[in-house]
Amino acid sequence: MADALESLKERLGEVLDLTKVVRLLSWDQQTMMPPAGTSHRADQMSTVFRLEHERFTDPEVGKLLDELQPLEDSLDPDSDDAALIRLTRRDYEKSVKVPSSLRAAMARASAEARPVWVQAKAESDFASFLPSLERIVELKLEYVDCVADGAAERYDVLLDDYEPQTTTAEVRTLFDELKPQIVELIAELREKDVDDSFLHGDFPPDRQVAIAHEVVDLFGHRPGSWRIDPTEHPFASGAGTDDIRITTNYHPDSLESLFSTMHEYGHGLYSHQQPKHLERLPIGQSCSLGIHESQSRLWENLVGRSLPFWRLFYPRVQETYPEQLGGVDLERFHAGIHAVKPALIRIQADEVCYGMHVMLRFELEQDIVEGRVELRDLPERWNEKMWEYLGVEVPDDGHGVLQDVHWSSGSIGYFSTYLIGTVASVQIWQAAQRDLPELEEQVGRGEFGPLREWLGEHVHAQGRKYSPQETLRRATGSPIAAQPYLDYLRQTYA
Amino acid sequence: MADALESLKERLGEVLDLTKVVRLLSWDQQTMMPPAGTSHRADQMSTVFRLEHERFTDPEVGKLLDELQPLEDSLDPDSDDAALIRLTRRDYEKSVKVPSSLRAAMARASAEARPVWVQAKAESDFASFLPSLERIVELKLEYVDCVADGAAERYDVLLDDYEPQTTTAEVRTLFDELKPQIVELIAELREKDVDDSFLHGDFPPDRQVAIAHEVVDLFGHRPGSWRIDPTEHPFASGAGTDDIRITTNYHPDSLESLFSTMHEYGHGLYSHQQPKHLERLPIGQSCSLGIHESQSRLWENLVGRSLPFWRLFYPRVQETYPEQLGGVDLERFHAGIHAVKPALIRIQADEVCYGMHVMLRFELEQDIVEGRVELRDLPERWNEKMWEYLGVEVPDDGHGVLQDVHWSSGSIGYFSTYLIGTVASVQIWQAAQRDLPELEEQVGRGEFGPLREWLGEHVHAQGRKYSPQETLRRATGSPIAAQPYLDYLRQTYA
Repeated sequence: MADALESLKERLGEVLDLTKVVRLLSWDQQTMMPPAGTSHRADQMSTVFRLEHERFTDPEVGKLLDELQPLEDSLDPDSDDAALIRLTRRDYEKSVKVPSSLRAAMARASAEARPVWVQAKAESDFASFLPSLERIVELKLEYVDCVADGAAERYDVLLDDYEPQTTTAEVRTLFDELKPQIVELIAELREKDVDDSFLHGDFPPDRQVAIAHEVVDLFGHRPGSWRIDPTEHPFASGAGTDDIRITTNYHPDSLESLFSTMHEYGHGLYSHQQPKHLERLPIGQSCSLGIHESQSRLWENLVGRSLPFWRLFYPRVQETYPEQLGGVDLERFHAGIHAVKPALIRIQADEVCYGMHVMLRFELEQDIVEGRVELRDLPERWNEKMWEYLGVEVPDDGHGVLQDVHWSSGSIGYFSTYLIGTVASVQIWQAAQRDLPELEEQVGRGEFGPLREWLGEHVHAQGRKYSPQETLRRATGSPIAAQPYLDYLRQTYA
Repeated sequence: MADALESLKERLGEVLDLTKVVRLLSWDQQTMMPPAGTSHRADQMSTVFRLEHERFTDPEVGKLLDELQPLEDSLDPDSDDAALIRLTRRDYEKSVKVPSSLRAAMARASAEARPVWVQAKAESDFASFLPSLERIVELKLEYVDCVADGAAERYDVLLDDYEPQTTTAEVRTLFDELKPQIVELIAELREKDVDDSFLHGDFPPDRQVAIAHEVVDLFGHRPGSWRIDPTEHPFASGAGTDDIRITTNYHPDSLESLFSTMHEYGHGLYSHQQPKHLERLPIGQSCSLGIHESQSRLWENLVGRSLPFWRLFYPRVQETYPEQLGGVDLERFHAGIHAVKPALIRIQADEVCYGMHVMLRFELEQDIVEGRVELRDLPERWNEKMWEYLGVEVPDDGHGVLQDVHWSSGSIGYFSTYLIGTVASVQIWQAAQRDLPELEEQVGRGEFGPLREWLGEHVHAQGRKYSPQETLRRATGSPIAAQPYLDYLRQTYA
């Protein structure tokens, strides 16, 4: 039995090595690779990805899991080993249901759709993207048929890929509670017309690089284990707990990179503080995209837009951009980074409007999967909802239904995790506040160690041992809830 | 039969993808990886490396090769497919002879020896490295026993890993012809005491970076397919013909990086110009380390130390370092980069002395493998030869027997390829001169296209289709020969 467990762990370690290699290849492609290297990289990624899948879905893994059933039954269900066997079985059973021909077809369809989407977006031409989207949705539905077994709704299958053990109905309940109140709040706040003009202007990229490094070092990490590089779209990646790589985009005319760096820091810290002894096992990985997003949002918004933080850090930012911010006092600056202005683009949305962008997508995706909308009608439905939720008129599809990369890469079921994580971030912050009564003063003094350690112990160290909801409950004492988030928005913005 | 060939090509493509991934992981480790990431990287490299080996030595490959024997026999032996099957069979038969336990033991022994060597070198303490070296040699001899079948000398097996189908006896014959003449030449030239003091001084690294990029762009390559990064030890790597990555070390007190960049450019160009349609097949790879080195030496020495090149490029270098080189005219500069000064360190050796450093190592390695020397006596033997060949007294083992990384990483049999390549570079240059009567004028005008194309057609496009000796013969019309190299040294230096 001990041998079987060792064999399983060895195999899973190998699979995770390959996962991390794929992640590194992708990081390299986006940061370092000479542009002409694309076609080599596609071959290499697909080979490593396929081997990773083959090694994990190998019948040998199924045999080991069967052998280990009695051991699992005999262990405390909360022990690492029981959780490992349980989690691996769940992953394995889901994976083996998908024929490799379908996996290959999905990968090919996404690879082919990507450049079509890029051009369609640039030209605001939804019709030219429609055939690619049809193919992607067709394959996604086939995928749902393969693994739907026992799911209450077909969309559950897709959601589960990003937010495991969470049902569409649960998310719908949460979002239904948020929606009317956020719509109401937006209607109130849009009238205020807060001045944030100073956030756009002249922000020399070399100074942005310096301040991005400064904030990451201030928030803190182990020495010699992080790097920050420029990319078109910011992301956090890395090849291990001591090899954390975040990226950002230094737009020369905006302060955006600072907030995006704090956001990616939160993602990076989650990976950085995952338990070292479980590093090459599935239970040592991140729990879900929602929990991941709760970490990025916590650092970006709860820390990174707070008054204590800006009392400390604003002088450094003013010093860095004296021409731009020398004449803007702390109060005006702090109000400016809380301006609420409904607009077209999700990734540029403020904290209050952001949720509506997510809900719109979550609703349309369910309509797609349940066949309640024809794909060719998506632009119209999109534009109707934008008007209804945000009071914004969509001038063209490039600024509407074509704006996100997700669907072109086959990621259907992903969007809701952005809002789940944002909502959870407030609950996690409040739990940290309860345990660390001096948290705000510490933030104001630049002492982030206690917060890092609290997150490490209550969130990061859990890895994937529990479901996202159970992870949140253990960290905060409550299941996910709309009210703390709504209260936070109202207190902060109204 | 066509199916078997397709299956074989698919499998080999997968294996080569993994080879290139390992190469990229190693490049990343040396250029980009946060230093704390070392232990993750070791796991990832060893997993990918092991899978690469398993996929290649899979009995399925042997079966395909057996099936393809009749096809091979029916084809023109010079056809790509016949060469592919022949070469793959050679590689396969060698690989399967080595048990994976031995491979793992060798990898572990090297990984463990590396830090021991680093410290031993720093402290000039050979005794502390001796146990690691003993273990490495013991395993290497075991390896020789596994694959020695039919080899005339045990050292042949090791040499074949770096310079395939080349015997120790052939190399000995070549070196025996070189040795007395080079020793004599050194004795003559060491008296001249040429002034090269201006090559050391103040060379600001940012300007070195600019001029390194300038020379690589001047020599030429397809756009968007190369990068140059700083590392401790210069090397050329990459993940495909359009993803070429060279590195150098910008020492602030020397012009060395310029020559090292030209050297690595030669390696990079070889990979860059390998045939695209054979990219994911073994016959499309580089032929041997000797042929590789012939390319780097050609650009570093035959182009990069030539008067036509410096007539063109010296004004740019003078402009770049006016304080340092403003007062040094072309003639003095050109003489300075041809100064001959016997010294302790191989990688800093001038063109004339370099060969003796290689021969010393080649001789000691044969003594080790044939059991003619006790490992503990290596420092003494090293120092004797240094005195005999170069008239140099070795003050300590850090500047002597411990100076190179090779033995600590298990690379025994490697050194001679440096000199084989250097000798071949002169023959290849002369063949290019015959075919391109205006070659020197073209170099003087900065027109490197004709040389690049000639090398592409006569050397690079051959890939691994022929043995190194046959590749050289096809490119130059002759087998490898000492005389052209000796003549070149005498003409250039005496």
